[in-house]
Amino acid sequence: MSKTNLHTQLLEKIETGLKALDLPGSPVSLYEPYRYALSVGGKRIRPILALVSCGLCKGKVDDALPAALALEILHNFTLVHDDIMDSAETRRGEPSVYKKWSEDVAILSGDVMFADAYKQLAFYGHSEEYSKEEFAAIHDVFTQSVITVCEGQALDMEFVDRDSVTRDEYLEMISGKTAALISGALEMGAIAAHASTEQREQLASLGVEMGLAFQIQDDLLDATANPEKFGKRPGGDIFEGKKTYLTIFALERANTSQQQLIRQVLDENEPTQERVDHVLDTMKELNVLDDVAAQVQKHYQKAGELLHSFADSEYKQELQNLLNFLQNRDH
Amino acid sequence: MSKTNLHTQLLEKIETGLKALDLPGSPVSLYEPYRYALSVGGKRIRPILALVSCGLCKGKVDDALPAALALEILHNFTLVHDDIMDSAETRRGEPSVYKKWSEDVAILSGDVMFADAYKQLAFYGHSEEYSKEEFAAIHDVFTQSVITVCEGQALDMEFVDRDSVTRDEYLEMISGKTAALISGALEMGAIAAHASTEQREQLASLGVEMGLAFQIQDDLLDATANPEKFGKRPGGDIFEGKKTYLTIFALERANTSQQQLIRQVLDENEPTQERVDHVLDTMKELNVLDDVAAQVQKHYQKAGELLHSFADSEYKQELQNLLNFLQNRDH
Repeated sequence: MSKTNLHTQLLEKIETGLKALDLPGSPVSLYEPYRYALSVGGKRIRPILALVSCGLCKGKVDDALPAALALEILHNFTLVHDDIMDSAETRRGEPSVYKKWSEDVAILSGDVMFADAYKQLAFYGHSEEYSKEEFAAIHDVFTQSVITVCEGQALDMEFVDRDSVTRDEYLEMISGKTAALISGALEMGAIAAHASTEQREQLASLGVEMGLAFQIQDDLLDATANPEKFGKRPGGDIFEGKKTYLTIFALERANTSQQQLIRQVLDENEPTQERVDHVLDTMKELNVLDDVAAQVQKHYQKAGELLHSFADSEYKQELQNLLNFLQNRDH
Repeated sequence: MSKTNLHTQLLEKIETGLKALDLPGSPVSLYEPYRYALSVGGKRIRPILALVSCGLCKGKVDDALPAALALEILHNFTLVHDDIMDSAETRRGEPSVYKKWSEDVAILSGDVMFADAYKQLAFYGHSEEYSKEEFAAIHDVFTQSVITVCEGQALDMEFVDRDSVTRDEYLEMISGKTAALISGALEMGAIAAHASTEQREQLASLGVEMGLAFQIQDDLLDATANPEKFGKRPGGDIFEGKKTYLTIFALERANTSQQQLIRQVLDENEPTQERVDHVLDTMKELNVLDDVAAQVQKHYQKAGELLHSFADSEYKQELQNLLNFLQNRDH
């Protein structure tokens, strides 16, 4: 994404804020992995969204920084624990925390990150600029987001062992895993700006649309990847036998012999490219790819509409840019 | 402990509160372990202390119930995660969560318990009876307690791999693992009663003394256990090669040959009773047992003094009973 000046500025605020966290030196086995998890980087999408949302609602952007940091710490805590559950040995090209240290260290340093995220929120409890209602709202939105993220991860793990998953169940899972925290970030930014309940709710909904669009699109892009452009063969998820929105959708539409084919290929340990292409062709025949693409566009469109009513500003433009960038990405 | 009527009443409030939590049915892999962890029971010491503290400060005891539930949920979350780290296959005679389900399930259901504990605290954010300062104080005390508990657990794990640990370091570790949450419970109960800052601080200090006394006493009782009375041989910690307050203290006072003996026995895989008795005798010679017993008494005494200034009430009597019971326990 070509970064605007504003985006660069906001990112700098976040990195400076993370560096200024002033974590204790000891116990080393607790705080070294914590620092490491934060330093490995990432796009800082959630904190950026909190700051943008605050600006969009005419708030002072710095006021949303404690919420932004809490969100980024929390997000990284979920990655530290998820990597254990998913046996993911690397994260953003670096060894994951459990791999670099141990599972025990990853569990415990994740826990302290979780608590430390709440510590950031105390800002709203002590600043005179915020009413008790606003502090309570920030506390509530954050807590509900975490709970929903845990529920999404639990569903994801349950689906692996299940024979069939419906599209609604799949959407519930990705709403939890991705959309909840994006929605929470936008809503917390709005509260930090003392926005009206209506604006808060609009931004929370916008986040859900954006999160759903993004996650469904991820499944779609896997099936339509251009190997020459990105060095990734199309259908990687099918090779890995993963249940995705596309395979679930295809199974719902398929006739008995098509269902059999899809299930067989997903169950094969190392399916050939030919077999995977066969599944992809079946998906195309069933109009699954086109319909899913239309669905992704619909969610982005809804997000755009929700943004529409806000007054013009560089923050509105920034959020629009981000939506456009995501909508048009091809990998 | 012979339970007073008041104790039974408070316990009932807590059990009723836990049953009324109204946890969702799904995802099953998240909420079934959560329910299980809470149902396995325990003495509910922390929530009892929160309620007693509230009554002691002339508050309405029911007002401390959300804090009490948050503390009990949080305590059980730490046990769910600790059992993974300590490879503890049972908890209160039942399979631990990670053993009954899996490590992944234990990590994630622990995480959602953590978040749900914060959800209970939202009561103070929404009740009109509480000022913003009080809500923020509850949020802060709770958060700091969790952080300190994580630090204590991290130190405990670090100590296993270290050659030497000082008494101060050991005290810091048990302050974190045990005293922090007991202190937090008493302080949160006081805040729920709208107590003065002075009373809050007094109760927080009382909790630290109580927690330290209890934990040091645990180490002492292990060395002085009466095998005929409790079916436990004295020196169980030495058999297991664990660093305890007693062995650390003994090593500090021992001459070179005594140090050698203690280190050797702790390092042995399966030391004989004779070897363990030799260490116990050395501790007695070094006056370690008597001095540690005196220290335990000193902490209980300080706790009692801190209680002294509160007005007489059944809650004060209850807390005094609890201190007496703990002080006089022989196992």
